[in-house]
Amino acid sequence: MSNINTILERKPKNIAVNTNPQHDLHLVQPEIPEPGPNECLVHVRATGICGSDVHFWKHGRIGDMVVCGENGLGHESSGVVIKTGANVTRHKAGDRVAIECGIPCSKPTCYFCRTGRYNACPEVVFCSTPPYHGTLRRYHTHPEDWLHPLPDKLSYEEGSLLEPLSVALAGIDRANLRLGDPLVICGAGPIGLVTLLAAHAAGAAPIVITDIDQNRLTRAKELVPRVRTVLVGGAGEDAKTLGARMVDALGVEAKLVLECTGVESSIQAAIYVSQLMNVYDFWDMLTLS
Amino acid sequence: MSNINTILERKPKNIAVNTNPQHDLHLVQPEIPEPGPNECLVHVRATGICGSDVHFWKHGRIGDMVVCGENGLGHESSGVVIKTGANVTRHKAGDRVAIECGIPCSKPTCYFCRTGRYNACPEVVFCSTPPYHGTLRRYHTHPEDWLHPLPDKLSYEEGSLLEPLSVALAGIDRANLRLGDPLVICGAGPIGLVTLLAAHAAGAAPIVITDIDQNRLTRAKELVPRVRTVLVGGAGEDAKTLGARMVDALGVEAKLVLECTGVESSIQAAIYVSQLMNVYDFWDMLTLS
Amino acid sequence: MSNINTILERKPKNIAVNTNPQHDLHLVQPEIPEPGPNECLVHVRATGICGSDVHFWKHGRIGDMVVCGENGLGHESSGVVIKTGANVTRHKAGDRVAIECGIPCSKPTCYFCRTGRYNACPEVVFCSTPPYHGTLRRYHTHPEDWLHPLPDKLSYEEGSLLEPLSVALAGIDRANLRLGDPLVICGAGPIGLVTLLAAHAAGAAPIVITDIDQNRLTRAKELVPRVRTVLVGGAGEDAKTLGARMVDALGVEAKLVLECTGVESSIQAAIYVSQLMNVYDFWDMLTLS
Amino acid sequence: MSNINTILERKPKNIAVNTNPQHDLHLVQPEIPEPGPNECLVHVRATGICGSDVHFWKHGRIGDMVVCGENGLGHESSGVVIKTGANVTRHKAGDRVAIECGIPCSKPTCYFCRTGRYNACPEVVFCSTPPYHGTLRRYHTHPEDWLHPLPDKLSYEEGSLLEPLSVALAGIDRANLRLGDPLVICGAGPIGLVTLLAAHAAGAAPIVITDIDQNRLTRAKELVPRVRTVLVGGAGEDAKTLGARMVDALGVEAKLVLECTGVESSIQAAIYVSQLMNVYDFWDMLTLS
Repeated sequence: MSNINTILERKPKNIAVNTNPQHDLHLVQPEIPEPGPNECLVHVRATGICGSDVHFWKHGRIGDMVVCGENGLGHESSGVVIKTGANVTRHKAGDRVAIECGIPCSKPTCYFCRTGRYNACPEVVFCSTPPYHGTLRRYHTHPEDWLHPLPDKLSYEEGSLLEPLSVALAGIDRANLRLGDPLVICGAGPIGLVTLLAAHAAGAAPIVITDIDQNRLTRAKELVPRVRTVLVGGAGEDAKTLGARMVDALGVEAKLVLECTGVESSIQAAIYVSQLMNVYDFWDMLTLS
Repeated sequence: MSNINTILERKPKNIAVNTNPQHDLHLVQPEIPEPGPNECLVHVRATGICGSDVHFWKHGRIGDMVVCGENGLGHESSGVVIKTGANVTRHKAGDRVAIECGIPCSKPTCYFCRTGRYNACPEVVFCSTPPYHGTLRRYHTHPEDWLHPLPDKLSYEEGSLLEPLSVALAGIDRANLRLGDPLVICGAGPIGLVTLLAAHAAGAAPIVITDIDQNRLTRAKELVPRVRTVLVGGAGEDAKTLGARMVDALGVEAKLVLECTGVESSIQAAIYVSQLMNVYDFWDMLTLS
Repeated sequence: MSNINTILERKPKNIAVNTNPQHDLHLVQPEIPEPGPNECLVHVRATGICGSDVHFWKHGRIGDMVVCGENGLGHESSGVVIKTGANVTRHKAGDRVAIECGIPCSKPTCYFCRTGRYNACPEVVFCSTPPYHGTLRRYHTHPEDWLHPLPDKLSYEEGSLLEPLSVALAGIDRANLRLGDPLVICGAGPIGLVTLLAAHAAGAAPIVITDIDQNRLTRAKELVPRVRTVLVGGAGEDAKTLGARMVDALGVEAKLVLECTGVESSIQAAIYVSQLMNVYDFWDMLTLS
Repeated sequence: MSNINTILERKPKNIAVNTNPQHDLHLVQPEIPEPGPNECLVHVRATGICGSDVHFWKHGRIGDMVVCGENGLGHESSGVVIKTGANVTRHKAGDRVAIECGIPCSKPTCYFCRTGRYNACPEVVFCSTPPYHGTLRRYHTHPEDWLHPLPDKLSYEEGSLLEPLSVALAGIDRANLRLGDPLVICGAGPIGLVTLLAAHAAGAAPIVITDIDQNRLTRAKELVPRVRTVLVGGAGEDAKTLGARMVDALGVEAKLVLECTGVESSIQAAIYVSQLMNVYDFWDMLTLS
């Protein structure tokens, strides 16, 4: 605990990783912020790099969110509380915490907050999406309500990955994945792999995962030995043939496909993985009127 | 009832509307079929023309279903039973019936039939999809189990429209439309209009319907005066602007969009109708990995 | 609007209906409260009497909620805003409003508030449940966030009934009632009747409603002529026979039963209304182990 | 395979366990049945004893199902096919199979069979429920469609337990149990334990299981070490206190309770395990009208 009390003395400067419209990726030294009455000052100890961080740096935008000035990156973080605001009751200095980086308005008059879909709050402040700075920095202040206690058995690195894990869990929840569902996961990147772990825990069976990179598929096999893999590749392969290969590996039609690539050809192939989408009432509705 | 007994004498020839690979649309005179032990001979009295009938005629195929020879059209039909097979117990001559044109295998070993998704039965015999003839003909034999009694208060014309109505009802059921859901229906063709009627009965509110044809929108207003209409048109209008116009007409974001056009630009616009699809966890899952 | 500005002059005293542990029902004259910064002072214009109001008066408690002192009744109210707190932005004097009488904590740290089930907030302040006073009074202050604008076409009386309507809508929503579902509603009291109206709007069909009072069933028929009624009565009638009569009136097994009586014999009969509850896997699970 | 061909020579008599209205439990020697055209003759190798078997023996009935004459028991069986009917295509002599003992009508005109709830078929022939004999016998003929291939890695004993496993899986499916749901299972008998195994595989967490027998709880811990146990007992303990102990062991309110005892006091306690059932809109609906 003496560590906590002396950390600001030992590391008296804040540091942060920023990008800007010139696509620089550079280290800056912002002020160390003072926590507001309901905030904690967190010493960030681990931050994952999201694809969106790379996107903001390389492309300067994601859809309508444009990097207009200096903007701090990072939103997959955990750390330790080192100072608390006057009204803080849930945390104290020394507490290890995971940071939930999307801070919704939580007002009862907000349809999304009131109905439990607070991730869609139109007033959300999401760290690292312009104009809000990110958490890839040493010191960060955060509302106490959106800091989650980290059990001792979780490392800071694991704590920082709770954010992408939440993406996978939310997808699995909304897709209503159930015990025994035959499942295809498209893509074995970070989101695909964490989706694989969650789907495994939810009892999906069998599970197929796809990727264009054999190394990623090998990693998937290490994580969940029972997963079946499909290497996507042959330049000329059309969506239907690829879909058929997925069904073949699954041994049965998929109940569900979780698409974790964002690549158009992958989405197209996914449509061919379940016969239920090829039936009369569907194409009548979609194709004819 | 004397009518029923003498109909084969008064109209002793069968007639049917066929198409073929040469895109002919012509009248043929097939044999009058004899009902099998579990079948009824039906005097067809009304048949709706589906977009798929036009498609088979003009384009010679829908996806993998190709017109290879002479093929009878039509699958939205009702009529009157005039003869019954030896084992038939549910219908008798004179019964007015609607014809369910997709005849699944109904075997317990068929995953789709056993689990209540019989429309997806891979062994389904669907009248009018090659190589099976359709019901746009005078006399047609059909399994008694897939003939549904028509109440007196329904006309034959209404009975023939039970098939497209079922398409709308199945869509509404699977999409889980509920009382009070703000709804957008894309397209005011036959499927769009019957979807509108069903969504109105299910209490969706408010409802917006779109089309490129003002006459269709006017017809929608006649059917359900409380519907709000959006005319799609301006050549240069992008998906996002069109989506915003739909939300504007709705006065609130849609809980659900029922897409009844099959047109790519319409599907794109539909994606912009609900903020819930623009949120972080969604683009993280779809765009990045 | 001059009305609004002079109302406190014209009616300078507050009045309220209280009960107490002695089961008195009497009129008191509380102070006229001053709205807090986020509150409005409402001139209550209509208040419905809930069964729970009668329960608190006659029995002095509902479960753990005990009338320990003087306690104001009423929680189905609408009225007009006559004064607003310093921070109020959503309402102004003269606005007609319905009062939502359960005020949850709305904190992100509350599981129920955060996940959209705010009605179950353990910190909820619910007007009229001890120790909180009710809204069966002339002047009442309320958080602006839980006052809902009343459209001109709704009367104050209708506005006050939005509360029991919400009970019916919440039940229909959680029970997942859908277009075309055969439905039994047990009880044609206020909650049963408002459930009938909502179920009718949601397209449930057919609908049976039951009661021990023929007058209530007649009222149900006036509200929704297509409803079918079952008079419950014969002292000796067992649950199974009553259930069979309900199925008989429905003409088909119920998909759903909405129980609005709280009477044990009614709940028992309801169990016999759907064959799906009599099947093997159910009694194996419930009866044997 | 020579075994298969000679088995009828080596064991030329059929034997079966029967009960009757006199509550006898005795061994009889029925004829060895000849398989019909779509049936297989199965040499039964393992049969589990269900609570219902004991019920029919001791009490002579379960609800409306009454033992009126000699009636064979048993419906949790697996075995090996030794002879096939003329039309059988899915199995051959020597195939190891699990027997699905409820044989529904599978007709498209049956609402339950057509919609995938075939377990509720009113025409179901369920082995061991009077007047149908059970499978606690040496030789049994069964429709090929309701014999399921047994993988080599499953023993006959395991195969016979697929029936109670299906009970647990069906309950979990209908209750919509999901990854991460806090769960209470009431009862650690055979159905409770198999429900525990299935819920563990589905990712329910945390899980509490209850019983009045410490040995059963110990067995539960052996099967799923992470399960938390609650011993039910103190004669005077009321439902509310017991419910509170369950919540206490869970550390959080349950999302779901799976009741596997059929004991009234257990069902009552289960109602106190989730705060969501104690909220206003619920007791308004149930208690008042």
